[in-house]
Amino acid sequence: MLDPESLYSANANNMQKSVIRELLKLLTTPDIISFAGGLPAPETFPVEGLRAAADKVFRERAAEALQYGTTEGDKELKDQLIAFEARQGLRLSRDELLVISASQQALDIVCKVFLDPGDLVIAGRPTYLGEIQAVQSYRASILGIPFSGGDDGFDMAELRARFANSKRAGKKVKYLYVIPDFQNPTGICWSLAKRRELLEFSYENDLLVVEDAPYREIRFLGETLPSLYQLDQDGEARRNVIGFKTFSKILAPGTRMGWIVGPPEIIAKFVVAKQAMDLCSNVFTQAWIAEYLRTGAIYAQIEETRKLYRGKRNHMVACLEKHMPKRPDLRWTSPEGGLFLWITLPESIDTERMFARAIEKKVAYVIGSAFYFDEPQGNCMRLNFSYPSLEQIDLGVRRLADCVGEELGGSD
Amino acid sequence: MLDPESLYSANANNMQKSVIRELLKLLTTPDIISFAGGLPAPETFPVEGLRAAADKVFRERAAEALQYGTTEGDKELKDQLIAFEARQGLRLSRDELLVISASQQALDIVCKVFLDPGDLVIAGRPTYLGEIQAVQSYRASILGIPFSGGDDGFDMAELRARFANSKRAGKKVKYLYVIPDFQNPTGICWSLAKRRELLEFSYENDLLVVEDAPYREIRFLGETLPSLYQLDQDGEARRNVIGFKTFSKILAPGTRMGWIVGPPEIIAKFVVAKQAMDLCSNVFTQAWIAEYLRTGAIYAQIEETRKLYRGKRNHMVACLEKHMPKRPDLRWTSPEGGLFLWITLPESIDTERMFARAIEKKVAYVIGSAFYFDEPQGNCMRLNFSYPSLEQIDLGVRRLADCVGEELGGSD
Repeated sequence: MLDPESLYSANANNMQKSVIRELLKLLTTPDIISFAGGLPAPETFPVEGLRAAADKVFRERAAEALQYGTTEGDKELKDQLIAFEARQGLRLSRDELLVISASQQALDIVCKVFLDPGDLVIAGRPTYLGEIQAVQSYRASILGIPFSGGDDGFDMAELRARFANSKRAGKKVKYLYVIPDFQNPTGICWSLAKRRELLEFSYENDLLVVEDAPYREIRFLGETLPSLYQLDQDGEARRNVIGFKTFSKILAPGTRMGWIVGPPEIIAKFVVAKQAMDLCSNVFTQAWIAEYLRTGAIYAQIEETRKLYRGKRNHMVACLEKHMPKRPDLRWTSPEGGLFLWITLPESIDTERMFARAIEKKVAYVIGSAFYFDEPQGNCMRLNFSYPSLEQIDLGVRRLADCVGEELGGSD
Repeated sequence: MLDPESLYSANANNMQKSVIRELLKLLTTPDIISFAGGLPAPETFPVEGLRAAADKVFRERAAEALQYGTTEGDKELKDQLIAFEARQGLRLSRDELLVISASQQALDIVCKVFLDPGDLVIAGRPTYLGEIQAVQSYRASILGIPFSGGDDGFDMAELRARFANSKRAGKKVKYLYVIPDFQNPTGICWSLAKRRELLEFSYENDLLVVEDAPYREIRFLGETLPSLYQLDQDGEARRNVIGFKTFSKILAPGTRMGWIVGPPEIIAKFVVAKQAMDLCSNVFTQAWIAEYLRTGAIYAQIEETRKLYRGKRNHMVACLEKHMPKRPDLRWTSPEGGLFLWITLPESIDTERMFARAIEKKVAYVIGSAFYFDEPQGNCMRLNFSYPSLEQIDLGVRRLADCVGEELGGSD
């Protein structure tokens, strides 16, 4: 009898299920208030605009949109993306742009093209779970860098020290993975000074920078800062930054569509990798989104999303202030954009252990340990504010505060 | 200055561009008749039916179809696929089914989950280029098995001999990759006896079988034979067959949608792999195709496609008989289904060398050598008959016959 276990690759044996996606499956009870997912609010989906755009593709480009496409991506969509990025001051040509099936595919392509088993990726500590999974699936490791106390980016002294250590240990760091705008899971936005410092560090050490920017457009407070890609382009133009974005948070995740920007020779390598992965991204959806972008409706629509999330974020922060026990060792980030905030609880609390209590009280979060590659910190949690309603935020935070109160009472 | 070349993974350095996709880019001259692609005829796309189905999704399931979905795939689509396969006598449960972004993603998932560098995959000689690319991208190799003279499957004596040799050499064969129905590139359909023999061989040697069946429904002559998956299910049920199919040839390739069937424990492993690759396939397209399948229109539509391709195939075979030089060492396969036929020319002709002459005469094909993992045979070519019109087939075959005649004249 065939034993599949004996046939799996070393990479497959190193793959880890997503804790979040497994958690989400448990949350089918309708009266649980979930802060666990990373779902955009469905009321932000421009259903009528998308419907009209799809209909136009059926009427005008059906034979082409239903046929095979190039691996590089639909030219019309690329031109629309170039125009979209130009509004933020980015100068792009078609060969600096690859259309992809949303950000997770970008993470997979970058790992496949750059990582050998045993290689290192520098990333935040904590960092996005999807990056951890992608890196694990190629048997590479993450060198985690803690964030500074000011919530403005990496602790740069730690970055330098840990990088030097890993070099001494003979490890090869292939790239720096960062989410400068409203990081997942913490919500942290990097300051301009820290962005410049990180870029300088990458120049000094000939490191590639991978800038994941799914939430960049979802800023609801403060001023937009230049991306690392822009800082390089407008400065020394050393071309060591790869950026990627997705339509998941600014349009609709069900479209599974995103894009990578980078130097043409790296994009060309990605194209070869993607050919063997899926030939090309959904051709119909590319034509459809190009059509939607052409109408220009996306700008007002993103503005609406920003307003909605600003209200939800403000409400969540207000509810936390109102209901959570007041202690110096209980704090949360106050993000200026994105979908998440990050709570650090007193060290006696283990959010994984507390999870059963939370489910009993009908509220859910993501345990913080899910976002650590190694030596996870147990007293943290990620809360999502984009999906729940204002009422649910209020009630959910009350329930969560009750949990924390009980844990503290029990452990005192 | 950063040198990306110094950062690429060993896998990336082993990746090869698709000869076909590079060839196709050259074919922008409008008066070239191309037998080179593998495109379905656009007149087979059920544009109105798909438009109505998409519109229904917008009206009834928009919020869900535009949101994130599960990695496993949309339940409605899965149920429609179970019903679709049941008409062919297949019994499937949801956990034996994974929705994927068309077949190339299945090839990538299978390679990622099973192949370590240096491993072997047994496949036809020649075989599908996309499988060659996928295997190369994980630094594994293909052990090519020639087809028997009767065009009915592998030369089984060669299979046994080559497998025994590779075992003696200490190589690990991870799976058998076969396209039993109208193989790409040859058009060969495996006989029932050969199917049984291959399955028996896989049982004897505890080998996994990967059955790629993109053309299975596109049979226009003869009787449908049971798939390897079915033969196993209806026989010993050893559960060592993984099958995959795509909507690319039976609906529209621009939808980038397909499915894998297999034992639940292997499907579960594939789900974990796919999570790190793209989280989930296009959610809107899953709902959209489920809606289209629900109407039942696909069966009549596939029947129309079969009729159309039967006419084109018959015409191409008739034109070859009429125009090609008559010699025992110049022959072609006569497929009972699929999109391609395979021509073997006299050994003095190298189709790669002849390609310039063909382009000059404004006709294109795929050089046979593209479909060999190693030691390519130079005197073959693949012709596609699904895309060109009857007139183009006639004119193109005349041009090709002229090329061959001139080559033979020149080399005599």
